[in-house]
Amino acid sequence: MAWARWGSHPWLVLLCAYAWGHPKSLDQREDVRNCSISPPYLPVTAVNTTAQLTALRQQMYIHNLSAYIVPDTDAHMSEYIGEYDQRRAWITGFTGSAGVAVLTMGKASLWTDSRYWTQAERQMDCNWELHKEVGTTPIITWLLTEIPVGARVGVDPFLFSINSWESYAKALQVSDRELLSIPVNLVDLVWGSERPPVPSEPIYALQEAFTGSTWQEKVAGIRSQMQKHLEAPTAVLLSALDETAWLFNLRGSDIPYNPFFYSYTLLTDSSIRLFANKSRFSSETLQYLNSGCTGPLCVQVEDYSQVSGSVQAYASGDVKIWIGTSYTSYGLYELIPKEKLIEDTYSPVMVTKAVKNSKEQTLLRASHVRDAVAVIRYLVWLEKNVPQGTVDEFSGAEQLEKFRGEEEFFSGSSFETISASGLNAALAHYSPTKELHRKLSSDEIYLLDSGGQYWYGWTTDVTRTVHWGTPSAFQKEAYTRVLIGNIDLSRLVFPAATSGRMVEAFARKALWDVGLNYGHGTGHGIGNFLCVHEWPVGFQSSNIAMAKGMFTSIEPGYYLDGEFGIRLEDVALVVEAKTKYPGTYLTFEVVSLVPYDRNLIDVSLLSSEQLQYLNRYYQIIREKVGPELQRRQLQEEFSWLQRHTEPLTARAAPTTSLAPLVTVSALAILGWSV
Amino acid sequence: MAWARWGSHPWLVLLCAYAWGHPKSLDQREDVRNCSISPPYLPVTAVNTTAQLTALRQQMYIHNLSAYIVPDTDAHMSEYIGEYDQRRAWITGFTGSAGVAVLTMGKASLWTDSRYWTQAERQMDCNWELHKEVGTTPIITWLLTEIPVGARVGVDPFLFSINSWESYAKALQVSDRELLSIPVNLVDLVWGSERPPVPSEPIYALQEAFTGSTWQEKVAGIRSQMQKHLEAPTAVLLSALDETAWLFNLRGSDIPYNPFFYSYTLLTDSSIRLFANKSRFSSETLQYLNSGCTGPLCVQVEDYSQVSGSVQAYASGDVKIWIGTSYTSYGLYELIPKEKLIEDTYSPVMVTKAVKNSKEQTLLRASHVRDAVAVIRYLVWLEKNVPQGTVDEFSGAEQLEKFRGEEEFFSGSSFETISASGLNAALAHYSPTKELHRKLSSDEIYLLDSGGQYWYGWTTDVTRTVHWGTPSAFQKEAYTRVLIGNIDLSRLVFPAATSGRMVEAFARKALWDVGLNYGHGTGHGIGNFLCVHEWPVGFQSSNIAMAKGMFTSIEPGYYLDGEFGIRLEDVALVVEAKTKYPGTYLTFEVVSLVPYDRNLIDVSLLSSEQLQYLNRYYQIIREKVGPELQRRQLQEEFSWLQRHTEPLTARAAPTTSLAPLVTVSALAILGWSV
Repeated sequence: MAWARWGSHPWLVLLCAYAWGHPKSLDQREDVRNCSISPPYLPVTAVNTTAQLTALRQQMYIHNLSAYIVPDTDAHMSEYIGEYDQRRAWITGFTGSAGVAVLTMGKASLWTDSRYWTQAERQMDCNWELHKEVGTTPIITWLLTEIPVGARVGVDPFLFSINSWESYAKALQVSDRELLSIPVNLVDLVWGSERPPVPSEPIYALQEAFTGSTWQEKVAGIRSQMQKHLEAPTAVLLSALDETAWLFNLRGSDIPYNPFFYSYTLLTDSSIRLFANKSRFSSETLQYLNSGCTGPLCVQVEDYSQVSGSVQAYASGDVKIWIGTSYTSYGLYELIPKEKLIEDTYSPVMVTKAVKNSKEQTLLRASHVRDAVAVIRYLVWLEKNVPQGTVDEFSGAEQLEKFRGEEEFFSGSSFETISASGLNAALAHYSPTKELHRKLSSDEIYLLDSGGQYWYGWTTDVTRTVHWGTPSAFQKEAYTRVLIGNIDLSRLVFPAATSGRMVEAFARKALWDVGLNYGHGTGHGIGNFLCVHEWPVGFQSSNIAMAKGMFTSIEPGYYLDGEFGIRLEDVALVVEAKTKYPGTYLTFEVVSLVPYDRNLIDVSLLSSEQLQYLNRYYQIIREKVGPELQRRQLQEEFSWLQRHTEPLTARAAPTTSLAPLVTVSALAILGWSV
Repeated sequence: MAWARWGSHPWLVLLCAYAWGHPKSLDQREDVRNCSISPPYLPVTAVNTTAQLTALRQQMYIHNLSAYIVPDTDAHMSEYIGEYDQRRAWITGFTGSAGVAVLTMGKASLWTDSRYWTQAERQMDCNWELHKEVGTTPIITWLLTEIPVGARVGVDPFLFSINSWESYAKALQVSDRELLSIPVNLVDLVWGSERPPVPSEPIYALQEAFTGSTWQEKVAGIRSQMQKHLEAPTAVLLSALDETAWLFNLRGSDIPYNPFFYSYTLLTDSSIRLFANKSRFSSETLQYLNSGCTGPLCVQVEDYSQVSGSVQAYASGDVKIWIGTSYTSYGLYELIPKEKLIEDTYSPVMVTKAVKNSKEQTLLRASHVRDAVAVIRYLVWLEKNVPQGTVDEFSGAEQLEKFRGEEEFFSGSSFETISASGLNAALAHYSPTKELHRKLSSDEIYLLDSGGQYWYGWTTDVTRTVHWGTPSAFQKEAYTRVLIGNIDLSRLVFPAATSGRMVEAFARKALWDVGLNYGHGTGHGIGNFLCVHEWPVGFQSSNIAMAKGMFTSIEPGYYLDGEFGIRLEDVALVVEAKTKYPGTYLTFEVVSLVPYDRNLIDVSLLSSEQLQYLNRYYQIIREKVGPELQRRQLQEEFSWLQRHTEPLTARAAPTTSLAPLVTVSALAILGWSV
């Protein structure tokens, strides 16, 4: 899944388009607000926010603030956030996943990206201004026009990364305003009884069969890194939810799509302190954690709310605390004296987790066979049902989830399924709803980006784009160039420790050649029953170098606003490459096992090497998925798989009957095998 | 020229080999010191440094220092430094261009890279330890073992970039040592009368015909950027020597290979202050600068030594000073209060200078025709003389300089010529000397990396690798893969504003495919009669995005230690690309005009597109250089050029006589033009 995290990770440069066809101008439409008429027009979907705004401004007044910023994340810089943390949604009415709200005494403004402009106009009342921009710069520019010199801007420091705090603080400071850290969240103060309760579902341990190492082994590994570190850290502080989940092989359900629970960990050289609500652990889980004993391999479970106090107390000693700045909130960061901090972009847990051991790799391969069965069942089902006109984007996504649900160990989707037909596929992050969706048609391209979470240790993510009718020549060309990008990056041989950034252009070259491109990143790491977007692996400048045992998605695309969209995404394992001359070289092994759509491939654009690679990949799909379909007696799906993985042959020659022979000879002359 | 700047720009990862064949072990050799015997053995080339060390330690004692660091740069972070600034050479005896010396009261140590290990063992006496490492980390690690907690390490802050100061300061601080800024250079205090005099050659203005814009236009352009800047700078402070030279179209000769003069500029919204020795300007030049008048377009020439005082005085006002941190010394940086600084990696002059206007582009094209004539004359001369056994690396380089010297407007080499035969070519930065060089032979590869400075506004840099006999199959394969890399990057089409880092792997792919690579960067910007290595253009992560009008070298290579080396370097202009679908895309136009060595090309490795590109390039060389050779009545060179730019044809077909026809038909079938 192409991932946009507008603030800290500019994955998507810009995707401006609209989701539901060419709409009327906004002031003629009934589904969106119109604040330019008197009285303003509000659709039924709009939320009256007057009461909450008044209450929040009262708090701002008490704290002597001219402005208050309400961001869209939680205290762990999570990609998906729980209901309990949806402060921005509650104060604005707008429920989209990305968007920052800023209040002054006179104005209320929301900044969000093009995916959400229509949704914001539907959900917000006229208390709110919508700013169609992203990033901190436009917010700061706006603030400087709205609040006077000397004014104070308040934020909850636990909802800001260190970087994002510093960019606001610096910009305000040079303009003689002040950013103020207010550790009590002002929205929470006024949210009151409407606020969803703190999650209380059990926190559970994974079965040992489904984990790569025991938590004791992982703790020992991290401590060994601490001992080897030149600056001699005495502790590692973990803030990202997947860090704690990974370290202890624990999971929960506090966050949608991610099996995490609210937590922090302070791992010292002699103790392990896990901050989470103790009542959520069963006695078996507490026993599993050696909780209650003392010693360096006993986990002391402390209450989640005690983290600030405990970290501050620990930091008062003769200690050095090692943190990853990407996921540590400014709220925790400001509690630790600078000289007691060791700052890396990513914590040692984040970096260690990025490389999967052989057991984890085996679990992954198995999960991808199962996941391919579900996706193939869905593609077969679509092929039969779309021509009947009975499938829409939403019912399709439900059907897919049904098929995935029939796979052993399935525990839910790894993100909201992107099931997009026709012009909706041009929106890289479009998801249909029960109310708003488009019918699938044999005349349109359909883009499906989806994945599953599996108890036995893996998360999947795969995108296929299909067309059941007669695609245009341009659609075929664009699809084939996207496919070439996927193939060329997947088969690239590169030196060990190359950064993804240095090689991702191989996924774009075939598009660039003719003046086409895509506006999102080319891939992201993926977890073991953890995040579907797992940093720090991937192809962006903030990612770490590629190493054997890492997994990344490879997902070039092409999007034509208002027309169609294409994305082809596979998950690939970084493996050693065999080269003619000796050296430590790497390449990718694709582990996703779903055929591409032959109907959209223009074989004449593929080089002989690309064709050979593709046919080898199809052979692997046959070998791995075929027997599983047969074992499950999915005969129709098995036949479909055979048809869709028939070896593709080079472009048929033109008119003369001699031509095929000539082609073959010439390819041989050119040293190609056909 | 592949550029190593070990400290701040890790261009070359590692090139470990030796220059003069497989030597005896060091303790059997007479050309290097042997400090392990008693009494130590010192060759005649070694310098006795006891007196200067004693004097410097006395200064350290006065300043209460446990250690003193003597780096290898000047106050402008120059790549090449003048005699006047060769402090490290004077204190150590070692004259290599890269190397940092550190003194404690008991020890004296030098850190340098593999290019210089032998030279250091020849030139240093046994007062000095040689550390075969680079970067700040090994120096810091050593310091921590040599000096106690609480100790003070002194440095001249004008010889440290901001980043390098901060990395030393932070590492020492966390280990409870202190880095101390001592604005008076302690080496200078003890150098005394032995020190070369301050350069006093005239500073002169370029003819207007040879400049892209007048200095007044350039000043207006920078001021306009200041006015548009959100943080409202009141001044730009320029520290790099080429910034001042570029801004005023002035040149000097204080630095080898670079036509610069010691200078700083403080360009404010209402004044222009040029810090340089006033006595070096003629009255015409002072008039050219409007010196003596008052007003925003009058240049006030102040003494070079006044820069600190003047900047400090200016910074005491209500001002904002915009700097590029890459070239500003910590010495100037620490004089300006943080809140009055606007810090970018590169100053607006550095970034503006990177894009050449059409007049500059025209001058460049003309200079490359002239430069190609000189290089081609040399290649022809080599072809005749090498088989006689009368040419060595050094005499060859001299002959080349003679040919370049016969070109109109030539003003000297743009760097020390790399003229390397056989195993010496494996050293990316090897240069022969009068004393130490290898004979050129028809049995060995010869690598020539050289360039000229031309008064009429350009600097050139070109590398060709040749073999006059029978190269091995591996040499041909390696050469051809390097050539493919050069071609594939040169013909790449990429979106505007793509960073060089994202595309440089196209120059490596053909090598990576078989497990080969090279350890240096892929290219660097180049100036208009300025630096041969002109930041911030190029293919490294610290370079800025590619834009139309930039020039960069493209120079993949391959080096086999102890055997041979290959590099193919061209200068290329970034131009707009025409694409099938509309969009703002860029590509490169190669402006170097010297044919590659056919004797080393394995045509069978080239794709049809690569071959087509190469033949088109050869056609351009013929069209541009041919007439110039004829005009100069260089008939032998003209014939050589015709022979060496004959179109190359695809690999000859196998046995049957029909084959050529089949090849052509098949290429036509595949849509290729032949």
